[in-house]
Amino acid sequence: MTTVKAYAAEQADKPMAPFNLDRREPGASDVEIEILYCGVCHSDIHTARNEWGGTMYPVVPGHEIVGKVSRVGASVTHHKVGDTVGVGCFVDSCGHCGNCKDDLEQYCENGHSQTYNSFLQDKKTIAYGGYSTHIVVTEKFVLKISDKLPLEAVAPLLCAGITTYSPLKHWNVKKGDKVAVVGLGGLGHMAVKIAASMGADVTVLSRSPGKAKDASELGAHHFELTTGKENMKKMAGSFNLIIDTVSAKHDYNEYLALLKTNGVMVLLGVPPEPETVHAASLIFGRRSLVGSLVGGIKETQEMLDYCAEHNIVSDVEVINIDQINEAFERTIQGDVHYRFVIDMASLKN
Amino acid sequence: MTTVKAYAAEQADKPMAPFNLDRREPGASDVEIEILYCGVCHSDIHTARNEWGGTMYPVVPGHEIVGKVSRVGASVTHHKVGDTVGVGCFVDSCGHCGNCKDDLEQYCENGHSQTYNSFLQDKKTIAYGGYSTHIVVTEKFVLKISDKLPLEAVAPLLCAGITTYSPLKHWNVKKGDKVAVVGLGGLGHMAVKIAASMGADVTVLSRSPGKAKDASELGAHHFELTTGKENMKKMAGSFNLIIDTVSAKHDYNEYLALLKTNGVMVLLGVPPEPETVHAASLIFGRRSLVGSLVGGIKETQEMLDYCAEHNIVSDVEVINIDQINEAFERTIQGDVHYRFVIDMASLKN
Repeated sequence: MTTVKAYAAEQADKPMAPFNLDRREPGASDVEIEILYCGVCHSDIHTARNEWGGTMYPVVPGHEIVGKVSRVGASVTHHKVGDTVGVGCFVDSCGHCGNCKDDLEQYCENGHSQTYNSFLQDKKTIAYGGYSTHIVVTEKFVLKISDKLPLEAVAPLLCAGITTYSPLKHWNVKKGDKVAVVGLGGLGHMAVKIAASMGADVTVLSRSPGKAKDASELGAHHFELTTGKENMKKMAGSFNLIIDTVSAKHDYNEYLALLKTNGVMVLLGVPPEPETVHAASLIFGRRSLVGSLVGGIKETQEMLDYCAEHNIVSDVEVINIDQINEAFERTIQGDVHYRFVIDMASLKN
Repeated sequence: MTTVKAYAAEQADKPMAPFNLDRREPGASDVEIEILYCGVCHSDIHTARNEWGGTMYPVVPGHEIVGKVSRVGASVTHHKVGDTVGVGCFVDSCGHCGNCKDDLEQYCENGHSQTYNSFLQDKKTIAYGGYSTHIVVTEKFVLKISDKLPLEAVAPLLCAGITTYSPLKHWNVKKGDKVAVVGLGGLGHMAVKIAASMGADVTVLSRSPGKAKDASELGAHHFELTTGKENMKKMAGSFNLIIDTVSAKHDYNEYLALLKTNGVMVLLGVPPEPETVHAASLIFGRRSLVGSLVGGIKETQEMLDYCAEHNIVSDVEVINIDQINEAFERTIQGDVHYRFVIDMASLKN
């Protein structure tokens, strides 16, 4: 075991605070990573505060991890010391179920191991996340990161990037497709950038007129308010795909009406209560309401390579680790453009 | 104009009764059909009783029509006098929108003309349906029917058949796929027959143990009760596709949980109130909740040819027109195996 510095929540109502964490010694297939940057995802807050239930304390959040390989196990072949690498939302899976064999580890039928607040595949060791100086991960779940882009801005690609890239690819967005993005936060701003890079005609749908300028700067071609009935009516039947990143209460039917025939609305957020759906909203126009969860390891590597090729990164605000509690509050208030990223040097020193 | 015998509802609370109907003389592109059989769809009842609102009285229901061509207009090339033909849920569409050009007239962007209780494309003439001795329809919307199968049992293919065939084709059901059919009525029994003919492994999901024998006779490979929590749990993650024909209240989330990763649940029924959907029911497993509305003319012809080739017809109970009010009541009670079909000879004589 190696003891490393970390930040943890020890109880739901306690702030994040310094914590010493034991990391396993790298096994034969393991990669030890010195973490340089870790993004702050809203899931980190939900988990730290036990808002979804089931948090195992102490919890060390963080699943948007970028760093350098510091040690490798004897049989590791894909990574070597000094390589720039990343770790996303999960660190292992069973490897033998149908979904794992199809490179869909995020849907592992035997339960994948999430990067934190989750059991490793021995079903008893708890995983601790990226708010720490080092992490040890089995090599298959370590991604290669290009040095071409600023690493602090690459970190959020490991969750926000793949979560939006995967459905855009899976539902086959192509040049000229009309794509709407609902909600312009951590996920939404990545959806805009990636959809635009694929040649789609991108519209940001928002309740806040103040987001129009940002939407344009991020690469959206149009900005429309969702607050007026007339405006929503005007957009009826307009979009091939809607990426819905909103986890607050909202009426799915209003957005389904904006889809063209055969259009698809992808849910990425989970509202606090189930929403209602009229069967007629789907039947007239053969529309689809679907969900998508991050992406598999193969697809995450593909996304990282794609973003390096297309110069796509997240818009980030870099913080020191001792600003994390303030960053949580500002994230909850939507007061971030568009992702906080922790500079892990601030934890080491 | 030609005056023909029909049965109509003159008010929401009046029984169906004899009615004289003026049919237009066949124009250059029109086909006049002597109706032999017309199926009784639950939509006929909803419309006759104004249960969906918007019924224009008097209404002559019926959109599962099979008959013989009795006259054709001067420019009709696809049909000739004496041909066996059919008419389904719609009789015209704009013909020039994107969906019409894509053979998806059911989603015509300018509004298709349904077979009854709908305006023709002049947007003022009301359409009257198949509970009558004759109907006049523009040739493109007249389907060719093989004489190989019993015509009374072919009639329901024009609505129940295409409504189930279309999603099974669109979502690409193939040999070995696990397909569940929820609800074993007019639609459900056709879904079982067609899915089984495509090589799928078919399970009927029902609340009624009494349907097990029928399910098996219709070609289902399995029958499962949806009433027990344990039984539902056992089936979690089992199906590639669920065809949900139920229009009564039911919990979509319970059925979504039965889908495999990438599974699709197709709604064909419209419950009286919108149902709730948990985003998580879709996100975990990248599942889809979709809707589908009948099928286009090209696909309806394909379905009729497919059914003729595979010896697929509806299970029907043939009635005389003067039994229609009793048939409505029995349909509401689910007391029909599985479709009433009116022998139109009973109206002529």
